[in-house]
Amino acid sequence: MRLSRSFIPTLKENPAEAQIVSHRLMLRAGLIRQTASGIYAWLPAGLRVLRNISQIVREEQNRIDAQEVLMPTLQSADLWRRSGRYDAYGPEMLRIQDRHKRELLYGPTNEEMITDLFGQSVKSYKELPQVLYHIQWKFRDEVRPRFGVMRGREFLMKDAYSFDVDFDGALTTYYRMLLSYLRTFQRLGVRAVPMRADTGPIGGKLSHEFLILASTGESGVYYDAELADQDWLDKPVDVNDPKDMQLFFNRVMVPYAATDEMHDVAAWETVPVERRREGRGVEVGHIFYFGTKYTEAMDISIAGPDGNKLYPEMGSYGIGVSRLAGAIIEASHDENGIIWPDSIAPFKAAILNLKSGDELCDALCERIYAASPDTFLYDDRPERAGVKFADADLMGHPWQIVIGPRGAKAGMVELKRRATGERQELAVDDALALVLAG
Amino acid sequence: MRLSRSFIPTLKENPAEAQIVSHRLMLRAGLIRQTASGIYAWLPAGLRVLRNISQIVREEQNRIDAQEVLMPTLQSADLWRRSGRYDAYGPEMLRIQDRHKRELLYGPTNEEMITDLFGQSVKSYKELPQVLYHIQWKFRDEVRPRFGVMRGREFLMKDAYSFDVDFDGALTTYYRMLLSYLRTFQRLGVRAVPMRADTGPIGGKLSHEFLILASTGESGVYYDAELADQDWLDKPVDVNDPKDMQLFFNRVMVPYAATDEMHDVAAWETVPVERRREGRGVEVGHIFYFGTKYTEAMDISIAGPDGNKLYPEMGSYGIGVSRLAGAIIEASHDENGIIWPDSIAPFKAAILNLKSGDELCDALCERIYAASPDTFLYDDRPERAGVKFADADLMGHPWQIVIGPRGAKAGMVELKRRATGERQELAVDDALALVLAG
Repeated sequence: MRLSRSFIPTLKENPAEAQIVSHRLMLRAGLIRQTASGIYAWLPAGLRVLRNISQIVREEQNRIDAQEVLMPTLQSADLWRRSGRYDAYGPEMLRIQDRHKRELLYGPTNEEMITDLFGQSVKSYKELPQVLYHIQWKFRDEVRPRFGVMRGREFLMKDAYSFDVDFDGALTTYYRMLLSYLRTFQRLGVRAVPMRADTGPIGGKLSHEFLILASTGESGVYYDAELADQDWLDKPVDVNDPKDMQLFFNRVMVPYAATDEMHDVAAWETVPVERRREGRGVEVGHIFYFGTKYTEAMDISIAGPDGNKLYPEMGSYGIGVSRLAGAIIEASHDENGIIWPDSIAPFKAAILNLKSGDELCDALCERIYAASPDTFLYDDRPERAGVKFADADLMGHPWQIVIGPRGAKAGMVELKRRATGERQELAVDDALALVLAG
Repeated sequence: MRLSRSFIPTLKENPAEAQIVSHRLMLRAGLIRQTASGIYAWLPAGLRVLRNISQIVREEQNRIDAQEVLMPTLQSADLWRRSGRYDAYGPEMLRIQDRHKRELLYGPTNEEMITDLFGQSVKSYKELPQVLYHIQWKFRDEVRPRFGVMRGREFLMKDAYSFDVDFDGALTTYYRMLLSYLRTFQRLGVRAVPMRADTGPIGGKLSHEFLILASTGESGVYYDAELADQDWLDKPVDVNDPKDMQLFFNRVMVPYAATDEMHDVAAWETVPVERRREGRGVEVGHIFYFGTKYTEAMDISIAGPDGNKLYPEMGSYGIGVSRLAGAIIEASHDENGIIWPDSIAPFKAAILNLKSGDELCDALCERIYAASPDTFLYDDRPERAGVKFADADLMGHPWQIVIGPRGAKAGMVELKRRATGERQELAVDDALALVLAG
């Protein structure tokens, strides 16, 4: 895109309403605008980030044979009465009446709806296991929305739901999903550490939170360095091989990791001192195994192997997609702005024309831009070099391709890596090859 | 996908609640399920259709330099008070109170929000024209929702909004969008005829509806065959060349076309009899030019070329994305089921294993399936051949690759084209090449 023609309204000043760095930077970099308390519009650059995150989440869900569906945002109150949660859920549930005075609600989560859809169609244990997920907007009527998209009211979430015949099957599905999450977060360019967690309002017996380490995190975290340092992409786990899954289980369940809520000092002290890590974390994912809680409450059964009716064992698995955009910035920024991981950056590179109007500079910029107009942001504005450098740092493109009159004459550009600040002079084609390979 | 492992719950019987063919077929083919009155969940095959439609719409919007954003589903009532529409809008608007008794609404359209976002950021005529769009769920509280996704309450719509300096600019944008729509619908595999229309609650001065021809359509249509027979993909129009745009204008504005509401019998009778076409149509798109209606009402101005304040001229442009899934079925089906256009089919082909369990058949099916597991639906169920044929016809895959024991021995398959019923015996690789080229 050409910046001069783009709807990417950057701000020079820090907006007064933003208390944390990710909120400030998302507003300043023109990614989002608030349209009502805790409700945001995603502008073109922000939407690219949101879509890049969603796509990685989707690919990793598909990899473990989860099937994507799309449930609506509004649900009927009656559905929630069947599980008993309609009255139990507090004022965070947005309750709505339609023109016929029928009670609806804006879904904060979808256990009831997916269980009902499953029950309408699946009749036999032979059709299990099934994992269904969707990526959809949800609403929680926070009493005091803040921190931008980190604690908004309307938010985008990936939620998956699994159905298994028995406890062993459910546990296997749970660990397949846990592995999928570790891969997902690593591909997003951040490390999220899985920690045993309370089950809260979803209920259930086993639960892990995934926390990105960031000093502004809402929870204290304690973990064994061994857990955070593993490479989940490099050592593939065959999710269909029970032995491989057992080894994987040992890699994630044995090392210590807990939030302050679940912290066990005695266990912590068995971790070698040099491997103990303490800090703060932002929750970006949460997985639950809760057995037959919803299938029994809603009386959704299938035929079991013995012909008797069987209540499927369920789990649910969430990733905060819109929250991740903020959380990743909390974990990856400096005093000049955002540092986007390559995998989710809205643009791979900015093209900085230091002398717009100069024939050679303009021609070289156009040539570079033409190589990948959808993934480059070409700063063609008639602005001073300083403004362009500052905006590129603020927006956090992984690469900056800098074109000045001297270099243009020689067919050379300066290539800057945003994360390290490293700069190198390169021939145009070499710079292009490097950037487009990423 | 393997059908035995898929959440694609086909139905043998016609569901009683469905009055029109697209609703019946969408339920029977396992594309959607109703979760509340006029509200639907999209199951895996249905979501693929929805996403394929969205992607073509997106590509054609991007082609004319419209920029994608994503506005939230909920809006503040105060925003709508600024245009005067909050009180004017009838009971189709879903009005909501949050926990602090602040008034919200589920957006039925976004003129107010986009005008406000535009006004916050754009300050000068130099930044125009701008076209912004999003693809987002909307809600209209229909008094009597029916016809499945054709007249649902929660529906997916692409809505674009344009901002221009003056009338001439706005008109150029309007015709660029009109062209974009013609290309979009043609790529979706249907013909939608543009017709002059009333401006209704959006207001304004110039408006076209796009109607897909189908006998169940809600409007009568009268048009010159010349208009419907043009190929918008084959004769590219340079949208940046005023002469090219003028020629295009003559191609679409001169031939007669009107819905019964706007029908002009005197003009109609000037169309040569052999070119007169009458029928019924389903509205799938609607575009409006309404000038400064919203920018003036909301007092959103920018600096004009003469330094004085200027109210930008606007238009808005909708495509009913979820409605299209139904409308395309209305226009493309037979007594056995759906006939998906290649461009939006959930799967390119079904692989029909006529003898599951037979070693040769299974091996050949697996080999074909492995060539494109994401785009083939492999019917690996232990069902009779007749059931598999019927389900494949019902689901409407463009191709069926039929594998039986005799052919498997010879490395031959039968390839059936759903739209024509044409069958041919082909070597496996030739069949694969033909299907994957489409």
